[in-house]
Amino acid sequence: MAASFPSKASGVVPLVLRVLTFIFLLASLIILTTNTATLVVNLVEFKIHFNDIYSYRYLLATIVIGFAYTILQILFALCYAATGKRLLGGDRNLLFDFYGDKVISYLLATGVAAGFAATKDLKPFFVALGAGDVVKFFDKGYASASLLLIGFVCTAISSVLSSYALPKQF
Amino acid sequence: MAASFPSKASGVVPLVLRVLTFIFLLASLIILTTNTATLVVNLVEFKIHFNDIYSYRYLLATIVIGFAYTILQILFALCYAATGKRLLGGDRNLLFDFYGDKVISYLLATGVAAGFAATKDLKPFFVALGAGDVVKFFDKGYASASLLLIGFVCTAISSVLSSYALPKQF
Repeated sequence: MAASFPSKASGVVPLVLRVLTFIFLLASLIILTTNTATLVVNLVEFKIHFNDIYSYRYLLATIVIGFAYTILQILFALCYAATGKRLLGGDRNLLFDFYGDKVISYLLATGVAAGFAATKDLKPFFVALGAGDVVKFFDKGYASASLLLIGFVCTAISSVLSSYALPKQF
Repeated sequence: MAASFPSKASGVVPLVLRVLTFIFLLASLIILTTNTATLVVNLVEFKIHFNDIYSYRYLLATIVIGFAYTILQILFALCYAATGKRLLGGDRNLLFDFYGDKVISYLLATGVAAGFAATKDLKPFFVALGAGDVVKFFDKGYASASLLLIGFVCTAISSVLSSYALPKQF
């Protein structure tokens, strides 16, 4: 039974999931970091940037950490494809995949939730405060969190695969 | 190697983790649902309840779902202790633990993040709006999210244990 798994764990599906995660996290990062708006309150203009919202800063942090981890995993996979050897020998490679996927997928899930929560609850406040393009600003926040959500789903599937590949001893 | 695991997976540690999750989720639920405040804006008094904040409603939803799942798992464990038989036969029991722990721990993680995100970003708005005990209201929001965080950590550890107990075939 166990013998059938490593071919799946080291095959093309995990790499495709990593590449998809990479693409969605990159798109999420670009939309988030280029997000600015203008808010006009009593004829005074305020510039709003994504880092004025704490939750968006946290969203950025989770994207960047997830992005770095995904690039590392893609490099590991490419190195394995080129040399036929794992950089981390023996079970350490499987343990790194298992705990890495687990921690990073939790982190991305919290980033998604923080992004959606702040957007949903703050949007009406900013809209009520004054004129400007704040609706577009928060819609872009939704877009960024949604793309991260797809990246999270890919990482969560990777995490299921790496759980099946796990050696059974503690 | 594999033979040593089931004793740990069905032993006392997973049950202790379930009971701890139960306690922290219950405490989080009580603090959240009893959380009300009064906001005074231009001499007009407003009652604020936790369900006026969308993220707190989501927080409640994740607590309730996590709570129901934890009770189910405790009942399964007690039934096994009493009769020596699993309610779900064969590998289905291990698969239920694995996917259940995984989904519920992701759900709790998003609840924690939504709770913290909304509290951090909304608190200054409400404080600036007017007088009242809104600071206490949001501090209770933090407390509820923090207790859920501990519940999440317990479920995440359960999820690691159920990953190790997983049968290796797909």
